[in-house]
Amino acid sequence: MTNKPQKPKLIAPRLPRGFEDRTPGEIAAVGTMIDKIKQVYERYGFDPVETPLFEYTETLGKFLPDTDRPNAGVFSLQDDDEQWMSLRYDLTAPLARHFAENFETLPKPYRSYRQGYVFRNERPGPGRFRQFMQFDADTVGAAGPEADAEMCMMMADVMDALGLEGKYVVRVNNRKVLDGVLDAAGVTSDEQKLTVLRAIDKLDKFGPEGVKLLLGAGRKDSSGDFTKGAELGEQQISELGRLIEFGRWFDFTAGPDGKSAQSAPVGLDGELTFFEAMQENFGQGALAAGGIAELAAMQALFDAAGYGPDRIKIDPSVVRGLEYYTGPVFEIELTFPVTNEKGQQVVFGSVGGGGRYDGLVSRFRREPVPATGFSIGVSRLFNALKLTGNVPATEPLGPVVVLVMDKDQIPGYQKMVSELRAAGIRAEMFLGNSKNFGKQIAYADKRNSPAVIIEGTQEREQNIVQIKDLIAGKQAAAAISDNAEWKATRPGQFECGRAEIVAKIKELLAAYQ
Amino acid sequence: MTNKPQKPKLIAPRLPRGFEDRTPGEIAAVGTMIDKIKQVYERYGFDPVETPLFEYTETLGKFLPDTDRPNAGVFSLQDDDEQWMSLRYDLTAPLARHFAENFETLPKPYRSYRQGYVFRNERPGPGRFRQFMQFDADTVGAAGPEADAEMCMMMADVMDALGLEGKYVVRVNNRKVLDGVLDAAGVTSDEQKLTVLRAIDKLDKFGPEGVKLLLGAGRKDSSGDFTKGAELGEQQISELGRLIEFGRWFDFTAGPDGKSAQSAPVGLDGELTFFEAMQENFGQGALAAGGIAELAAMQALFDAAGYGPDRIKIDPSVVRGLEYYTGPVFEIELTFPVTNEKGQQVVFGSVGGGGRYDGLVSRFRREPVPATGFSIGVSRLFNALKLTGNVPATEPLGPVVVLVMDKDQIPGYQKMVSELRAAGIRAEMFLGNSKNFGKQIAYADKRNSPAVIIEGTQEREQNIVQIKDLIAGKQAAAAISDNAEWKATRPGQFECGRAEIVAKIKELLAAYQ
Repeated sequence: MTNKPQKPKLIAPRLPRGFEDRTPGEIAAVGTMIDKIKQVYERYGFDPVETPLFEYTETLGKFLPDTDRPNAGVFSLQDDDEQWMSLRYDLTAPLARHFAENFETLPKPYRSYRQGYVFRNERPGPGRFRQFMQFDADTVGAAGPEADAEMCMMMADVMDALGLEGKYVVRVNNRKVLDGVLDAAGVTSDEQKLTVLRAIDKLDKFGPEGVKLLLGAGRKDSSGDFTKGAELGEQQISELGRLIEFGRWFDFTAGPDGKSAQSAPVGLDGELTFFEAMQENFGQGALAAGGIAELAAMQALFDAAGYGPDRIKIDPSVVRGLEYYTGPVFEIELTFPVTNEKGQQVVFGSVGGGGRYDGLVSRFRREPVPATGFSIGVSRLFNALKLTGNVPATEPLGPVVVLVMDKDQIPGYQKMVSELRAAGIRAEMFLGNSKNFGKQIAYADKRNSPAVIIEGTQEREQNIVQIKDLIAGKQAAAAISDNAEWKATRPGQFECGRAEIVAKIKELLAAYQ
Repeated sequence: MTNKPQKPKLIAPRLPRGFEDRTPGEIAAVGTMIDKIKQVYERYGFDPVETPLFEYTETLGKFLPDTDRPNAGVFSLQDDDEQWMSLRYDLTAPLARHFAENFETLPKPYRSYRQGYVFRNERPGPGRFRQFMQFDADTVGAAGPEADAEMCMMMADVMDALGLEGKYVVRVNNRKVLDGVLDAAGVTSDEQKLTVLRAIDKLDKFGPEGVKLLLGAGRKDSSGDFTKGAELGEQQISELGRLIEFGRWFDFTAGPDGKSAQSAPVGLDGELTFFEAMQENFGQGALAAGGIAELAAMQALFDAAGYGPDRIKIDPSVVRGLEYYTGPVFEIELTFPVTNEKGQQVVFGSVGGGGRYDGLVSRFRREPVPATGFSIGVSRLFNALKLTGNVPATEPLGPVVVLVMDKDQIPGYQKMVSELRAAGIRAEMFLGNSKNFGKQIAYADKRNSPAVIIEGTQEREQNIVQIKDLIAGKQAAAAISDNAEWKATRPGQFECGRAEIVAKIKELLAAYQ
């Protein structure tokens, strides 16, 4: 037996679960989408701000819904000085810190937008990543419902700017109404309230019956996993059920005057406006009545600015899962149908949302600091745009490639490339190891190059080059079936003087732009 | 004694050390800078790619120089399945993983650029952060010096695109020359070699004498901290010193033909070209001779493409601290003077660099995969641009602000804002709590608003508004010293019909653009 020398162990090239790379096409398309969103935010008077990815763990607080891990969904580590730091799980908690830290110098109200990656230490799944991008806008230091209404209108304008007209609705509710109804139903512990809110937030996913299970003992999903419920009594569940289904009973799409066009639903008088009916059904307590009045004030602003209920709609079943909301809450729902993993037709659903969080800055400062804002899930919205065909399908053109026909002539080929670049044309010399002409052409094809430039000995002696138009070549190849004819005509290839390269390539590119 | 109710403890709003927020002006200016860099990379034929912030720790490897902490400068944490994950410390190690993972589908050579945050778990200091942005370009799968030469030319073009003509030089060396000289000097252990390279890399910072201390027993800095040296003998230090100072002895700025315009330096014949002299002094071993030949080939490409030694210059003292370089190395030095913290005039120094790293992808795959690339330190380059006046100093215009003179009329004010926004004009309604006119104007001033719109009861009855041109107002205020005159003329304020608002604001903005 001979001893073979041991090769070093190879490392598997792979990513931790829940993380992904992004390709050139996706980067370009997401960039275009983000620019369009930015333009809307800027037009609304918001300015950018950026915070780092780390914050002190106590700064972020614990507001994440649906955590399924011991460390509550956050990536955390201990610094040299023993203090715990965490990667941000959203862009709102860091904003509250930034505002409190710069309270003396920032304009008030402080209107800012932020875009960046956030991290969730959760079990990844299809379409569920541990690093994803959010794009937020917030107004800090504005107490009135006009600030909340503006958020809803801006979300609607963002959807329009992305070409989603008629394919979305911004749904609006108020936590004060929910809290009032919970109080009236005798749900008093904070923990139980939160469980109830998170159950109602699952309405889209599980339907009214699923939510009712979560309000009671609990719900078992199709995989057999059991989620513990809020353990409410039957009477409590029935009262909450009435709230959840109110928006569905009362068809509010009839018109901005709020009059129902349908027959009155059970327990409601058809002659009442939407807000009168809400008041009659849920407004007995002062908290809920105040919430209903805020919703009515927001509706008046939507009406004045011309946002009909096809774009922004009050819906008492909207909750939003986060604990820190204190007033109006809203979410953008994309209404077009998609097929889910079970083969069922469902609406695409939420791509973002937000609400009023008057208590978040108060964690840092004694005085009350009202605030409202929303967050868009960038990846999810991008996936929606792909489904609706609002993302360009064409691959961008690659560079012109100067082939290396003769290794000794590399400085000359480099000079051609430099001339093209100086004229603003994307260009490169083939830098691979292969002298094989076919492999160099295959590389150019793979890069989606519009053309290659060929200078062999013969061309150099005549002071000319061959230009091969790869786009024309492909089109011709599709039309020519005969190999002999192909070789005889060499479609898309022509020669030109060495000094004419830049002009000829410009002509060629102009034809494909 | 009465019992006061205890207020909840406030959290201090602050960031962990070494992290920072970014302001609107900086975000806009850095964005402009990044766009200009991208345009150059794209023109050179590079396409974007993006990797996530986390990688498996073993994927990243341990290539960081100057680590002063037990966990080697990297932020790491253990995943659920016990595997260690780390935040990337540069953009090169993740690229190697990405290329190896997608080897079958990527074009080869694979030419990509990447921009994003990297993290170093190091002691922060002035201008030294634990999260900072890098902007890289790499060609993977290209073995020849033409790929390295292209990197150097691209770095030079980036500097020109940013307006730094005449203020930089790209300095180029080859690790093979360094390794050859180290071999000849009898420095054989990998660890000692690395200590020597890192010592030479400090030439800018500590000068030749400081480097010689680091090559010997070690160096004590002004704070008394002692850095252990490579412990070379006197003869070894003298040989390395000759290499370090070679570039300074031999004035290569005379012309691209490489002939020295000055009298021959000690030990060199003035009639030799630069590369002949290098060969004579350091090229006895095959490794060093190969490195010198590669440098000469790169110089031929610089000459062909018209990059003179005022832009790209061979300099045998360039090292780059990272362990993984195997061939040409290069760095961008900004040559204009700045004053350091000790009040001394020094050149601004390096804002980026890179080199050939043929072994990095081989950690994942059996076949050799040559690669070369470079990295720009975005913050450091941005600081340089601020110093040279290449960043616009003017603050961007804020939104037009519609004042809230009467809370009952908010829907009407909202309508004005919506009309302005629909016309593409940045606009907002004042959302703060204050009814105080002066405070609302102060807010608009702080936002750098061009104008405010005022509609009180009187204006509403007449169906007009007042427009206050804040820019004209400020200019007039500077010219008028008399308070009575100010009140009488109210400079910059005019009235217009309610229906004319959009047209009048457009006129006003056109005058300031």
